[in-house]
Amino acid sequence: MNYDSLIYWIGMIGIAAFAVTGVLAVLPKGVDLFGATVIGMLTALGGGTLRDLVLGVPVFWSIDSLYIWVALVASGITFWAKHVLSRADIFRLMLYLDGLGVALFSIQAVSKVWDLDYGPPVTPVVLGVVTGIGGGLIRDVLSGRPNLLMTSHELYLTPVTLGCVLYSVSLHYLPQFESVPAILSVALIFCFRAAAIRWNLGVPKCLVSDVK
Amino acid sequence: MNYDSLIYWIGMIGIAAFAVTGVLAVLPKGVDLFGATVIGMLTALGGGTLRDLVLGVPVFWSIDSLYIWVALVASGITFWAKHVLSRADIFRLMLYLDGLGVALFSIQAVSKVWDLDYGPPVTPVVLGVVTGIGGGLIRDVLSGRPNLLMTSHELYLTPVTLGCVLYSVSLHYLPQFESVPAILSVALIFCFRAAAIRWNLGVPKCLVSDVK
Amino acid sequence: MNYDSLIYWIGMIGIAAFAVTGVLAVLPKGVDLFGATVIGMLTALGGGTLRDLVLGVPVFWSIDSLYIWVALVASGITFWAKHVLSRADIFRLMLYLDGLGVALFSIQAVSKVWDLDYGPPVTPVVLGVVTGIGGGLIRDVLSGRPNLLMTSHELYLTPVTLGCVLYSVSLHYLPQFESVPAILSVALIFCFRAAAIRWNLGVPKCLVSDVK
Repeated sequence: MNYDSLIYWIGMIGIAAFAVTGVLAVLPKGVDLFGATVIGMLTALGGGTLRDLVLGVPVFWSIDSLYIWVALVASGITFWAKHVLSRADIFRLMLYLDGLGVALFSIQAVSKVWDLDYGPPVTPVVLGVVTGIGGGLIRDVLSGRPNLLMTSHELYLTPVTLGCVLYSVSLHYLPQFESVPAILSVALIFCFRAAAIRWNLGVPKCLVSDVK
Repeated sequence: MNYDSLIYWIGMIGIAAFAVTGVLAVLPKGVDLFGATVIGMLTALGGGTLRDLVLGVPVFWSIDSLYIWVALVASGITFWAKHVLSRADIFRLMLYLDGLGVALFSIQAVSKVWDLDYGPPVTPVVLGVVTGIGGGLIRDVLSGRPNLLMTSHELYLTPVTLGCVLYSVSLHYLPQFESVPAILSVALIFCFRAAAIRWNLGVPKCLVSDVK
Repeated sequence: MNYDSLIYWIGMIGIAAFAVTGVLAVLPKGVDLFGATVIGMLTALGGGTLRDLVLGVPVFWSIDSLYIWVALVASGITFWAKHVLSRADIFRLMLYLDGLGVALFSIQAVSKVWDLDYGPPVTPVVLGVVTGIGGGLIRDVLSGRPNLLMTSHELYLTPVTLGCVLYSVSLHYLPQFESVPAILSVALIFCFRAAAIRWNLGVPKCLVSDVK
């Protein structure tokens, strides 16, 4: 298994984790199998779809429909196996896999936008963040949950933004290196997310609005 | 009147029914004429617009602006004639026309996506469902109503999904027939929806999440 | 400074005002710096992005990333300078600048869609309105506020719609004049909005649904 197919399969694990966490988030609201599956698929595929719409390229799941199948099957399994998947230890594992997924997809998106020469250096960062958080935003809007832009008790947007900025800056100033900054940026996002999950970190108080 | 123009005019009736049910859904919230009209148009045209955005083709109402006019006029009439249109028997008729519309548009969308050879056999199903339910989702998000993904007391998503799967499977395995499976799939969705409206059917309990 | 660059810089002021009002609208909900900035950018850039997605052209901020920077910096400043910017007189100034921005962008959008010959005369009006109100709708959906389609106590949609209709009608029947109807339409929207802000005008009762 070479480097590219390793990335590809880690990506598929990330898609599955997105779908699992998406379905688990809405199950308490009494959804049915079909509704839960659509929510899971939107969570898993929504961010990349928004990116591709803005870029004007064919959406990624129309080229490789394995993405659809993985999101579909993971959502369906979650509906039936919710008692297993919502167990504290398994759910925590899913959160880490979700963190790995968001790290990978955000940086892949920055790279894809950069390769298309689409408004660097700032547009790649914007679309990297959109790719990372878009699916979760769609899920939260459709399920009536407070979304991650409006809640400051979880560190999600911050790691993604910092990782995308770091990678974009390195592509701008150090274009001769390509993989090393990518791997470092993925690692930055993932470790930051993992620390936030592990120690239940929120955004520092000084960065939270206190207007009431 | 030939077969194609029959389909075309049934489609226009479906657009009008979407707009009417869309406006009636938000009227109790105290909207004004302009807001109600925008909601009605988004309900009627939203699903097909999402489909065309993903496909990267010009949106259907930019090519034939009669779609805009029908949605606009139907929304405006509904605002003024709400006392007539919200009468139980007329509203029920509108629900059936809405069911006919969603049946027609979902299968038309599968067919359109298939003709563009856009990721068959699974992408056409996804975009058929998006076309069928997209407008209603946009309406519910904007009007703050619980949307059809999160409520299991109405059968809407299920008929649309089954019809799109049936048609896509038939196009895959029986490509020599074209119109017959299309008509059967439209009939399946419509009859399923009509039965759900007539007998007030919900999703079977075994397919509804009981995590509380 | 010639006419075009005057328009360009007024547009930038409008983008900044959109971002400021967007961030001020969500600050009471206890957002953090990153969330507020994303909301501010979506408010400022969302409407034009929707328009460009429907038109199938590259989004405006990918061609000129100054739009992103202005929205980003204005959002960030608002977060830190909220006590100054939410003062009654400054906030009122921001509302007027927001009105100027919406007037300018709606009419610019009609003009852009018309130049692309994209379904005139009705599609330009639709996309003009989408450009004007899209960003605000996205903000309100993400922040859980009632959006301007569902509230009739503020005149926002009405002026924008009337201005876009007026400009589209004049382009259709009086194509030999170009700038004069544009300026008149911008003035119509702005004066109408300014009057609504100044005297706190709502939609007339006869145009508001009384179904309860």
